[in-house]
Amino acid sequence: MVSEEMYTLGTKKSTIRTIFEFGQKRAAEVGAENVFDFSLGNPNVPAPDFIRDAAVDILRHDDPTAVHGYTIAPGKPAVREALAADLKRRFGMDVTGKNLFMTAGAAASVTITFKALTEPGDEFITIAPFFPEYRVFVEACGGKLVVVPAKTDDFQIDFAALERALSTRTKAVIINSPNNPSGAVYSETTIRRLADLLRAKEQECGHPIFIIADEPYREIVYDGASVPCIPLLYDNTIVCYSYSKSFSLPGERIGYIVVPDSAADFARIYGAIAGAARVLTHVNAPSLWQLVVARCVGQAADLSIYERNAALLYDGLTALGFSCVRPQGAFYLFPQALEPDDAAFCRRAQEYDLLLVPGRDFGCPGYFRAAYCVRSEVIEKSLPRFEELAKSYKSISE
Amino acid sequence: MVSEEMYTLGTKKSTIRTIFEFGQKRAAEVGAENVFDFSLGNPNVPAPDFIRDAAVDILRHDDPTAVHGYTIAPGKPAVREALAADLKRRFGMDVTGKNLFMTAGAAASVTITFKALTEPGDEFITIAPFFPEYRVFVEACGGKLVVVPAKTDDFQIDFAALERALSTRTKAVIINSPNNPSGAVYSETTIRRLADLLRAKEQECGHPIFIIADEPYREIVYDGASVPCIPLLYDNTIVCYSYSKSFSLPGERIGYIVVPDSAADFARIYGAIAGAARVLTHVNAPSLWQLVVARCVGQAADLSIYERNAALLYDGLTALGFSCVRPQGAFYLFPQALEPDDAAFCRRAQEYDLLLVPGRDFGCPGYFRAAYCVRSEVIEKSLPRFEELAKSYKSISE
Repeated sequence: MVSEEMYTLGTKKSTIRTIFEFGQKRAAEVGAENVFDFSLGNPNVPAPDFIRDAAVDILRHDDPTAVHGYTIAPGKPAVREALAADLKRRFGMDVTGKNLFMTAGAAASVTITFKALTEPGDEFITIAPFFPEYRVFVEACGGKLVVVPAKTDDFQIDFAALERALSTRTKAVIINSPNNPSGAVYSETTIRRLADLLRAKEQECGHPIFIIADEPYREIVYDGASVPCIPLLYDNTIVCYSYSKSFSLPGERIGYIVVPDSAADFARIYGAIAGAARVLTHVNAPSLWQLVVARCVGQAADLSIYERNAALLYDGLTALGFSCVRPQGAFYLFPQALEPDDAAFCRRAQEYDLLLVPGRDFGCPGYFRAAYCVRSEVIEKSLPRFEELAKSYKSISE
Repeated sequence: MVSEEMYTLGTKKSTIRTIFEFGQKRAAEVGAENVFDFSLGNPNVPAPDFIRDAAVDILRHDDPTAVHGYTIAPGKPAVREALAADLKRRFGMDVTGKNLFMTAGAAASVTITFKALTEPGDEFITIAPFFPEYRVFVEACGGKLVVVPAKTDDFQIDFAALERALSTRTKAVIINSPNNPSGAVYSETTIRRLADLLRAKEQECGHPIFIIADEPYREIVYDGASVPCIPLLYDNTIVCYSYSKSFSLPGERIGYIVVPDSAADFARIYGAIAGAARVLTHVNAPSLWQLVVARCVGQAADLSIYERNAALLYDGLTALGFSCVRPQGAFYLFPQALEPDDAAFCRRAQEYDLLLVPGRDFGCPGYFRAAYCVRSEVIEKSLPRFEELAKSYKSISE
């Protein structure tokens, strides 16, 4: 009576959802302040004041029919010009408004891109650990997701494994850096090596292989680390962006896609993106938020709490004996679980009211994700619980 | 290299788009005030002050992480409760928050519903004249659109034709009343007769046949006409709503779907809707606008200009000899073209700087659509042009 596939996708509880519900139940029993929820990537930094001020100013002074009217599908031309000029200024990207397509956030950006590119038999490669919705989105667009196993010593790319995964069916490689869930930032060396490999493979198989650069965490990097601007290093790059994390606006659904002129057959890609947005019924990106992000170009939210939290949690957990690659960006820590079965480890963590997500959900079993986009106090108060959790394993092994 | 289907959907110019571009060109030549654009359904009534005030108040006083954070996929529980209570109060619908699923507007509402319901081989019936994107959306979801020809004497439903169109493959009948483009409001008699017919057909074929009530124009009705509340007359009704027209917020993308408890297997439908929203990457309906519409429950925008415009254009055109059913709602007039070829008629109208859309685009050749969601002055100034246009036909026939 309904689509079985949609019913399953809509009702099968994800691990994160199950953890979330457990957390709600425990919070009712022991108080929310005694439950340490590291399960969700919902920014705890409030949207900056300049966002509120821009929105209020536009609402108060601009013509409501212009603010709230339909925009053309790619987004308001002046908005796209302003954002393109900013990309040019900050990264040296050779783009103008015609290269941008405004979207309703990161999920829309990547899925519109998958849908635009997918021809029958196409494969999309992702590097573990990876955002699990990629599988849902790629498969919904008729493509196949191919997973390259994680390089767990530093969470950069295992190039031997990537080379094995590439084939004539490869349409694109998804690059998510800063990475959810590992916190790794792919270095310029990594990206250059990737670009060389893909160019050679393009030659070999006679068609373009795209990099889809999914970059919602681009502005969240530590120790002065910088995120390489991939389109400058590889022509066939499509950038997917969202303001969910950088401006703490995840509920408002606002972002964009960049298709540079250098991409093979720009016009066909951009046209197919318009078609994909149409059938996914993203009529236009929310119009007030288009205006707000354009108005706030050049301003940056204070995201330094994430770096402080990263240090606090990393130092705390490594002092307790956890093995972990130090995150360079995003707001996730991805340590090794204290037993091979990461799901069992996360279930045990729940007994200490620590809500963590098993690494297998991200294609990397034996690890767990802790999202530290929480108040620093939550991290401080959680460390004794992590200590008890770690001790519970030592007492077994002793 | 890209999906041919998406490229075609994204780049093939629609008639409306071609007319729009002609209008832009002509406006540059003769001045915008001398081009009479009746082609677009973009509301000219500004969003009411209470919308702006609610948005500003929420931005100024509410916690930004609560306002702008992700919401659960169906939408904020308190928002859905408030809107459900309003539906109960106004229409006597037996619903609570759990029956509502917040969406990014009407296109999302109907497409999520199509996607949730579609099983292989399913057919969706639409009554001409109809919104042309239905075909794109239904086909993108894997369904087949079946068109029932228009009943042009009053634009109600041709029941004999509908009966012929129904089959064991029919999953749903799409009802768009007040109608775009005819302006007809289906009477309670029409809906009761439809309900009887569908119930008999359900018995015969042994499975539910849904009514998908696409109602973005529900609040725009004239002469005290009322829009029957379809779920009260037919159990298997799914209501799709949008605030684009009632609150003049088309660019913000906010609306909802109602699945009443009375619908066959409510839980499976609602679950499949969640799955469809997920794969169409409608992560959540824009969060600020969820709060705003809930805050404004019980308030109504002054939409009386549409009724004045309807009278002005209807009286003006019928006085010139145009044959037309008087619209009862929405903001479209759908008169007979002055020659059998409606596309040729609309091309000739362009010579008089009148921008009209051929009826064939809505599955009803020989007619044209004039969207009168424009300033009344535009209508007044256009009437001499319509007179010249009409005369140009008389001089031929004389």
